[in-house]
Amino acid sequence: MLAVHIENGRVEARRVPRPRRPQGFALIRLLAGGICNTDLELQRGYYGFRGTPGHEFVGEVVEADSPDLAGKRVVGEINLACNRCEWCRKGLGRHCPKRSVLGIVKHPGAFREFFTLPERNLHHVPERMSSETAVFVEPVAAACEILDQVRIPKGATVAVLGDGKLGLLAGQVLLAHGARVCQFGRHQHKLRIVERAGAETFVVKDSRELPAAEFEFVVEATGSREGLEGAIQMVRPRGTVVMKSTVHDRVAVDTAPVIVNEITLVGSRCGRFEPALKLLAAGRVRVHEMISESMPLSRAPEAFARAAQSGVLKVLLRPD
Amino acid sequence: MLAVHIENGRVEARRVPRPRRPQGFALIRLLAGGICNTDLELQRGYYGFRGTPGHEFVGEVVEADSPDLAGKRVVGEINLACNRCEWCRKGLGRHCPKRSVLGIVKHPGAFREFFTLPERNLHHVPERMSSETAVFVEPVAAACEILDQVRIPKGATVAVLGDGKLGLLAGQVLLAHGARVCQFGRHQHKLRIVERAGAETFVVKDSRELPAAEFEFVVEATGSREGLEGAIQMVRPRGTVVMKSTVHDRVAVDTAPVIVNEITLVGSRCGRFEPALKLLAAGRVRVHEMISESMPLSRAPEAFARAAQSGVLKVLLRPD
Repeated sequence: MLAVHIENGRVEARRVPRPRRPQGFALIRLLAGGICNTDLELQRGYYGFRGTPGHEFVGEVVEADSPDLAGKRVVGEINLACNRCEWCRKGLGRHCPKRSVLGIVKHPGAFREFFTLPERNLHHVPERMSSETAVFVEPVAAACEILDQVRIPKGATVAVLGDGKLGLLAGQVLLAHGARVCQFGRHQHKLRIVERAGAETFVVKDSRELPAAEFEFVVEATGSREGLEGAIQMVRPRGTVVMKSTVHDRVAVDTAPVIVNEITLVGSRCGRFEPALKLLAAGRVRVHEMISESMPLSRAPEAFARAAQSGVLKVLLRPD
Repeated sequence: MLAVHIENGRVEARRVPRPRRPQGFALIRLLAGGICNTDLELQRGYYGFRGTPGHEFVGEVVEADSPDLAGKRVVGEINLACNRCEWCRKGLGRHCPKRSVLGIVKHPGAFREFFTLPERNLHHVPERMSSETAVFVEPVAAACEILDQVRIPKGATVAVLGDGKLGLLAGQVLLAHGARVCQFGRHQHKLRIVERAGAETFVVKDSRELPAAEFEFVVEATGSREGLEGAIQMVRPRGTVVMKSTVHDRVAVDTAPVIVNEITLVGSRCGRFEPALKLLAAGRVRVHEMISESMPLSRAPEAFARAAQSGVLKVLLRPD
C-alpha cells in the first residue's frame, strides 16, 4: 500500500506493507487526511521526526474487535494513552506521559492507505456529514479546547490573531460560542471566511499596526515566532492570551509587559472531539471554503509543498 | 536634603530641595527604604530610568490633609492611580493606564529624606511592628499577589525557583497559606531562611538538575533570564507557572512544551498591602534574617553595589 514518508526534510510516497492490527485497535482505511501546520513543522525537523505523518483524518473501519465499528466512518483522537496513570484516570489521556501520538510521536500517522488506532479513540461520523467536513473534526476540537481551558463569557470580545487554518476555525468556534470576534490577519480572502460567519476583520501587514492593550482575550494563532509578542501587545492588563502556535525553535519574548500587566498566557493544544462533532454537524463551523486542494497520496510531495505556500488553506490527501 | 539619583547607570547621593506637598498628598520623612531587584534593573537602564528610585519604604508623615496621619508611621502602595478610569473603579488602580509609579515611572521615589505620596496610598504601621519589618510590606504584598491571582489549595505542593529576596518571601507566604513548599536555589545560607519556616530546600547549581514535569504550581523568582525555561521544565502538564522575575531584555523561550503540555503562565507584580501587613504583624513571615546591611542615604552608591552582589539579600537605606 502507499504511505507518505518524511525524512530529513523530504516528503515522499512509498510502498509499504499493510499494518497489522493489534488487539484493541481498529484497522482503518483512509478516506481523507488534512495537512496541518504541525505536519509542516515535522517536515522541518520538529521532534526530530522521521516516518509517516498525519493526524487529521476520516476513515472507514476495515477490521475491529467491536462489531459495531466494522464498515463505519470514523474520526479519531490522536493521543494513544496508557489508560492507567493518574492523567488517564482524570480523563486527560491527552497528557498521559506514556502516550504516543498518531503521526507525531511513536505511532505512524494516517497519511497512508491503511492505519491503526485504538478503538477507544474512535468516534462515529454522523451519516449526513461529508468526509470533507469530518476531516476537520480534529482541528475544530483543538479550537474548542480554548473554551475548555479559559472561561470566556458569551458576548465577550475576543481577538484572534492569524488567518491560517487554526485561526479561522478558532474564530468560528468563538462566534458559535457567542463571543464577538475581531480577527486580524494578512489575507483579505482568508479573513472573508470568518467575516461571513460574523467576525469583524482587520488586514494587518505589519505587527506595529496591531492595537495596544485593547482585548481581554487574545487567541494567538499566527503560527509564527512574532505572533506571541503581537498578542502580548494587544491584550489588556490582567487579560489572557491563548497560545495556539506550535513553533519549532525558540521564541524571544519581552516578559516585562507580561509581568507588569499581569497577563496570563495559556498554552493550548488538542481538544475533546464531542463539541467539535456537534458544531460541525449543526453547520455552526463551516469548513468547505477552507479546502484549497485535494490530492492523492501519490502526490504527497506536491501536496506538502502546496500546503506550505502563503495564502493556501487546507490541503487534503486522499487514496489514489 | 539628600536624595539618591540614578543616571546612565550611576548612583549618587545629591543635595536637592525638599519636595512641595500637593493637595491630597502626604509629605513623608524616610525611616527606612529597601533596595529591590527592580531598583538594580532601573540602574541598568530598565524603563530608560533617570531620577530618584525607591518604592519599598517605611516613613513618618510630616504633613498631610488628614489630621489622623500626621506623625504616624506609614507604608504606601506604589501606584499613583487616576481614581476615575474603569481599572480604578474595579479596585485595580495598580493597572490604571494613567498611573505613575513611586520611584519607577514619573514619580520620584522614596530614597530621599522627604518624599510625597497620595494619602489614599498610605497604610498605618501597627505600633508593635519595627520599621525594619515594615519596610518589607511592599515586597511581601508582591508575594501575596500570587494567592490573589492563582487558586492554590491549602496542602498543595508549590515549587519556588530562586532564593533571592522575593523568592524567599514567596516561599514564606505560601507556607503561611498552608502550601507545601519546595524551594530551589543556589545558596545554602539563603535557603536556610525558608527551611526554618518549613520549606524543603534544594541547592541546584545547574538548571539541568531541576526536576521535570513534577509540580502543579511553580513560582519563578530567579530574577534571571534562564529562570522561565527552568520553571516550564518543572511544571506538570496543565500546571501553572507564576512569573515574578522582572528582567530587562528579551527572554528566549521554547514555547513548544508550553503548548503541548497546556501550561498556564501568569505574570505577577504588585499586591494589596492588607494581607502583607497581617502576615508580618502575626510573625508568619520573618524578614529580619533577610537584612544583609543597612546604610545611610549618603552611602547609596555603596549600598547599590552591595545589593547587586551574589549572596546578598536585602540592603536597607536610612537617613544619615
